Amino acid sequence: MAVLCLLHRAYGDDLMNGIRAGLPGEDIREWPDVRDPADIDICVIFRMQPGFLAPYPNLRLISSTGAGIDHYLSDPSLPRDIPLVRVVDPDSGARMAEYTLCWVLFHHRDVAFFQAAQARGEWAYKQMRSASSVRVGVMGLGHMGASACERLVATGYQVAGWSRGPKSLPGVENFHGPNGFEAFLARTEILVNLLPLTAETKGILCRRTFDAMPRGSVVISAGRGAHLLEADLQAALADGQLRAATIDAFPKEPLPADSPLWTTPNLHITPHCSSTASLETTVGVITGNIRRFRAGEPLLNLVDYSKGY
Amino acid sequence: MAVLCLLHRAYGDDLMNGIRAGLPGEDIREWPDVRDPADIDICVIFRMQPGFLAPYPNLRLISSTGAGIDHYLSDPSLPRDIPLVRVVDPDSGARMAEYTLCWVLFHHRDVAFFQAAQARGEWAYKQMRSASSVRVGVMGLGHMGASACERLVATGYQVAGWSRGPKSLPGVENFHGPNGFEAFLARTEILVNLLPLTAETKGILCRRTFDAMPRGSVVISAGRGAHLLEADLQAALADGQLRAATIDAFPKEPLPADSPLWTTPNLHITPHCSSTASLETTVGVITGNIRRFRAGEPLLNLVDYSKGY
Repeated sequence: MAVLCLLHRAYGDDLMNGIRAGLPGEDIREWPDVRDPADIDICVIFRMQPGFLAPYPNLRLISSTGAGIDHYLSDPSLPRDIPLVRVVDPDSGARMAEYTLCWVLFHHRDVAFFQAAQARGEWAYKQMRSASSVRVGVMGLGHMGASACERLVATGYQVAGWSRGPKSLPGVENFHGPNGFEAFLARTEILVNLLPLTAETKGILCRRTFDAMPRGSVVISAGRGAHLLEADLQAALADGQLRAATIDAFPKEPLPADSPLWTTPNLHITPHCSSTASLETTVGVITGNIRRFRAGEPLLNLVDYSKGY
Repeated sequence: MAVLCLLHRAYGDDLMNGIRAGLPGEDIREWPDVRDPADIDICVIFRMQPGFLAPYPNLRLISSTGAGIDHYLSDPSLPRDIPLVRVVDPDSGARMAEYTLCWVLFHHRDVAFFQAAQARGEWAYKQMRSASSVRVGVMGLGHMGASACERLVATGYQVAGWSRGPKSLPGVENFHGPNGFEAFLARTEILVNLLPLTAETKGILCRRTFDAMPRGSVVISAGRGAHLLEADLQAALADGQLRAATIDAFPKEPLPADSPLWTTPNLHITPHCSSTASLETTVGVITGNIRRFRAGEPLLNLVDYSKGY
């Protein structure tokens, strides 16, 4: 049997080389060098396209090269009896928390205001609020969300979290379920989205959500691209309901060159880099799971199809 | 006797009105409405110019409207037998820590790189380092420096501090005195200056200091303007010894319109707003000290002339 790899290019050849080095004796093929599709029993894939897995009758394991797996779950032809594993960097919570804290502080301290003043050559003084008076709300209280909340609380913000079910985190006011959503938004002036993508959360960054926040709020999204309704975000920024936003994940990535988002005022774009796994972790998790699979051992970071993550 | 006020304009008329409201029965005069200089026994002053106090033979109390008092101490004609008090916001340590953390994260996460990529309409991916691998060094471990260290440690950075004498702070490697300075700089890739201005620290942000850091380091200064040698900073940024800097305090403020610093690449300018006291605190401390003085009670935030702060 053989392992078929279709990898992302962020690491150059290092990821492919690392996988080969970590799996001596395996027959490893780099797509499109498939040869006989019946040979393939393991696929290691970046950003899977619908139907990609259909040609492989003997597939027994699917390994995502990243943490997000909505590309897989949105494919109706995905064989749901085959285990799907993903790469989770133990450090990813910390990196996501750093991204979150960076942009919460950026907007709280209004760095863009001072950058614009500098560009005009103007000494434009502005009173700063204390973090202890700023209300931050985090949607999604999994590994990422909990880490972000911890850093935000340590920095002194008034932090609330919104999750599917009730969840207790130190120093964090909890709201949960559809019934808690409006009250959560009403008290939140900087909203941080760290939700997984599910049927319930798709399109959650929409006009209705923005309008339920105080006027002049800020949205930071490091969730998934399909959380965002781009036109709604543009409109809310244009009319001042949102004073600024930072978005890391978009419905179509890379963001197309002709997207109007590139030049939308008060919108800050980052290229899906909020939390990147290290090369070492990515190689280690992928090769470790393939060795475990061959040895019949329990798999790491196995996706629960019923939950969607 | 009368109180003479020369206030800054950041609060508009609110500061003058607040002082009047807080001191009913006092004869309060707003400079240049001095009338007879012999009437004045208390001066409340923003950014004192040399010789300003000379005309007042019956002066008994000097009140700075801010926390920094080097404008006073650098005046050889300052009568050093007269108590000098200043405004310290109990929240100022937190605000300074927020400024520090904001700009450390800005440079660590290379926000300017992503802003430049967005301006070009380019999806420019970049691997991020974890805070736990980034070495931040804080110069000055007083109230401000200790608060900043606490937040930086909580965010996961490798934090060292440099102080006049040995000082123990949780999670912070300590260097001290002139003998510890080089080792402190050699291990520091993001330098944060929160020193008071003294004879020893004047001009400390100079070429020699920058050259003692690893190539491509970052400097953040929220100390005093006279810490900085502007030409040295420009040169270090131009030749890449420093990859970026954020400066809040300048030798001459407001920074002159024709200063080349406004357009120096990789230099981020903030208009001395790193830690601003609230109007309420400023009014409360100024009027409280005047009431204490009239009642013969101990003064708040009394400057120790021998230490210089």
